[in-house]
Amino acid sequence: MNIQEIIANKRDRKKLSEEEIQYFIQSYTKEEIADYQASALIMAIYINGMDEEEITNLTMAMAHSGDILDLSELGTVVDKHSTGGVGDKVTLILAPIISSLGIPVAKMSGRGLGYTGGTIDKLESIPGYKTNISIEQFKENVKKIGISLIGQTMNLAPADKKIYALRDSISATESIPLIASSIMSKKIAAGANKIVLDVTYGSGAFMKTKEDAQKLADTMQKIGEMSERETICILTSMEQPLGRNIGNILEVKEAVEFLRGKGERDVEEVILELGSYMIKLAGKGENLEENKQKIKETITNGKAYQKLKELVKKQGGDISYIENLEKFKIANYILPVIATKTGIITRLEAEHVGKISVELGAGRIKKEDKIDYSVGIVLEKKTGDYVTEGETIAYIHANEKEKGNEAVKKLQSAYEIK
Amino acid sequence: MNIQEIIANKRDRKKLSEEEIQYFIQSYTKEEIADYQASALIMAIYINGMDEEEITNLTMAMAHSGDILDLSELGTVVDKHSTGGVGDKVTLILAPIISSLGIPVAKMSGRGLGYTGGTIDKLESIPGYKTNISIEQFKENVKKIGISLIGQTMNLAPADKKIYALRDSISATESIPLIASSIMSKKIAAGANKIVLDVTYGSGAFMKTKEDAQKLADTMQKIGEMSERETICILTSMEQPLGRNIGNILEVKEAVEFLRGKGERDVEEVILELGSYMIKLAGKGENLEENKQKIKETITNGKAYQKLKELVKKQGGDISYIENLEKFKIANYILPVIATKTGIITRLEAEHVGKISVELGAGRIKKEDKIDYSVGIVLEKKTGDYVTEGETIAYIHANEKEKGNEAVKKLQSAYEIK
Repeated sequence: MNIQEIIANKRDRKKLSEEEIQYFIQSYTKEEIADYQASALIMAIYINGMDEEEITNLTMAMAHSGDILDLSELGTVVDKHSTGGVGDKVTLILAPIISSLGIPVAKMSGRGLGYTGGTIDKLESIPGYKTNISIEQFKENVKKIGISLIGQTMNLAPADKKIYALRDSISATESIPLIASSIMSKKIAAGANKIVLDVTYGSGAFMKTKEDAQKLADTMQKIGEMSERETICILTSMEQPLGRNIGNILEVKEAVEFLRGKGERDVEEVILELGSYMIKLAGKGENLEENKQKIKETITNGKAYQKLKELVKKQGGDISYIENLEKFKIANYILPVIATKTGIITRLEAEHVGKISVELGAGRIKKEDKIDYSVGIVLEKKTGDYVTEGETIAYIHANEKEKGNEAVKKLQSAYEIK
Repeated sequence: MNIQEIIANKRDRKKLSEEEIQYFIQSYTKEEIADYQASALIMAIYINGMDEEEITNLTMAMAHSGDILDLSELGTVVDKHSTGGVGDKVTLILAPIISSLGIPVAKMSGRGLGYTGGTIDKLESIPGYKTNISIEQFKENVKKIGISLIGQTMNLAPADKKIYALRDSISATESIPLIASSIMSKKIAAGANKIVLDVTYGSGAFMKTKEDAQKLADTMQKIGEMSERETICILTSMEQPLGRNIGNILEVKEAVEFLRGKGERDVEEVILELGSYMIKLAGKGENLEENKQKIKETITNGKAYQKLKELVKKQGGDISYIENLEKFKIANYILPVIATKTGIITRLEAEHVGKISVELGAGRIKKEDKIDYSVGIVLEKKTGDYVTEGETIAYIHANEKEKGNEAVKKLQSAYEIK
C-alpha cells in the first residue's frame, strides 16, 4: 500500500478501504506522508465525498491516532458538543445543571478560533480557574464533586489537528465527511460513550443552511451508531448570537445569572432541549418533558448554581467573583449603540457580531493571539424587537477608545431595521 | 486575490480567470504558495478539469515563469517533441535529416525518467559530446552548421518543473490539462514558433488509449492556436517498443544505421510522418508525399548521415565512434532470450520492456540515478512475427550477470506467443 494509490482511488471516486484509511492516518501522524500528499487526498475527499463506512473508519483512525481517555471508572459519561456559535455559553450553564442532577460531567473543551468563542477561554476569565490540571486530578474531581471542565491536556486525535490545520489553508473546511469525522474523532478520543451534539446552522455557524446542518447531523448520528457511541443531534439556529452577551467575562456573567434564574429565552430553549436529551442518554429519565422540568427545578432550587461554585472552587477559581459579579474587571469604555431609525429589527448576523467582538480583542484571529477577557458586546435588542430612533440597542465594552468607536459603527450597521 | 479563493473556485468547478492562473503560477514559483496548497489546486484541476482558455493561460503562465529562449535570429525554427516512449530514437534520426534539408534545428531535449528514455542521455553516450554548452554557442552552432542539440541549460518554465515533481507524488500525472500545459509551456519557453508533436499512445505511453491521445492532441493543437504557435500533432502507437534497440548506446547505433540506410520499418514510418510535417511547417514543401521523398533522398545520398557527424563533431563528440560503431563499449554479457513455444507473437508491452531496460541500468528510477550507457535490449522479433520454439527472439545486454539473467526471464515472459 502507498499513498499515491490511495490518492488515485479517491481521485477516481472509489471507496477507500479501512486499511487504506488507517494507513493514511497512521503514516500522516508519523510524518511519513508529506503535507502536500495529505492535502491532495483531502481535496479529493472534499470533491468526491465519502460514504458512511468510510467516514466512520476515518473517524476511528483519527480518534486512535493519539491518546484515548478512559473514563469507564466514572460510569456513564454523557458528552455534549456544539459545532460552534457566537455568544454560545451553553456548556458553562448546562454542565453544572447536569452534574447537579447526579449525572457525572467530565468534559474537555476547546478554545475559540475565528469568530466563534471557546468554553476554555471563558473559564480562564474567572481568576484562578485552572483548565490544565492533570488527568488524575480531572477524574478525581469528577469522583468527588461530580464535575470537571478542563482544556485538552492530552495528545487527543493528533491526526485531526494536522488535518484541521491543512483544511483551513486549502479551502477544504465546509465538507460534511471532514467536519463530521473531526468532531466525532475528538469526542471518541475524549472518552465519550454517549454524545449530545448541538448542530448549529445559520450565519454564525459552519453550516449556513438547515438542510446542510441536517446532513451533518445525520452523518454524525450514523458514525455514532457504527462506532457504538449513542449519539443524538439537535439542530439549533445560529442566525443571530445566542443570548445577550458576547465576550468572555460578559458570557460568564450571563451564565451565572442564568443559573440564578434570570435567563434569556433563546438560551433557555437550547439548555432545555440539549439537557433533556443528556438526561435521557444518561439513563436518568425517558420522558423529555419531565427532564425539562427537572432542569427548571435544579435552577429554581439553586442546586445548579451551587454546583457551578463547587466546580470553580475545586479548579482553583475565586468564587467571590461568581458570588459578586461586580468584582470582575469591567472594560474601560462602555459605549452605547443607538438605533438609527424606528422599526422592527429584521436581521443581526451572528458572524458579523462575532467578528466585531474578535476585533475588540475577545477572540483570536491567529492561534497565538492573546485574549482580552473584559471586552465584548451586550445586546439590548435582537431580531424581532421593536425599536425607536435614538434608543440604545446595544453596548460595546472596549479597552481602547478607538477600537470601541469603530465597533459601535460596525454594530450599528449590523442591525437591519425595517 | 489569494490562493484559498482560487482553490475554492476550481474545487467548485468554476472557471479560473487569467489573473488567477497567473497569480498561482507566479506566487508558487516565488515559493509564496506552499506545496500543500499547490497540490490541493492541482488535484482540483485533475478532478474538475479546465477548458481550453484556462489551459492556454496555464501554459503561457508556466512558459513565462522563467527564461524565454529567443531564437528569432535563426529564422523559422520548427521544434519536435514526443510525449514519450520506449526505444524512441526519433530525434537522433530526424534532427540531422531536417537540418540536411536546409531547415535550422535548434533543439533542447530532456533526460529520461521512469521507463521512457531521453535524447540527452543517448547523446551523452557518445564519448565527448557536450550537451551543456552555452546558449551563445548553441545559437552559433545553428548558424554555422544548421543544427544543435543540447540539454535544458536555461531556467526554462521553472513552475512546470515544480508542478511536474508534485504531480508524480500525488497521483496527478494522467491529466490532459496538466500534460498539455506542461509540454506546451516547455516548447514555448524553448523558443518554438512551430511545433510538431508526436503524441504516443498504448502501453508505453502516458496515454493508454488512442481516444485519450486524440484528446491530448486536440488540446495541444488548441493551445498552439490560442498562443499563436502553429502546432501539428501526429498520433503514433507505442504499444510495443519503437525499432529494435532499447538502451542508450544501442539506440545511438540503431539511429546511425538508420541514417546509413538500414532502418526498421516502424521507425521509418514515424520519421516520414513527423518529418514531412516539419518540412511543411518550415515552409519548405506543401506536399507531404513529396516531403517524404525528400527525406528518403537525403538518407540515400548520405547527407543526413554527414549532418549527424557534423553535429557530433561540433559539440565535441568523437566521430570515430559514429564511423566505426564497434568502438562503442559493449556490455559484459550478451544473453539470448529464447522463444518458449512456436507461434505468432501477439503482445510485447512497451512499458514492460522499458522497465526491464531500466532495471538493467539503462534508465533512472530516481532523478539522481546514474545511467549505464552500454546496457539494454535488442529485439530480434516483435509483435506479428512468427517464431519457432528454441529460436532467439531477443538479446539482453547486461554488465552484471545476475541482473542479466533476471532480465532474460522477465523479457521471455513479456513475449506473448500464441
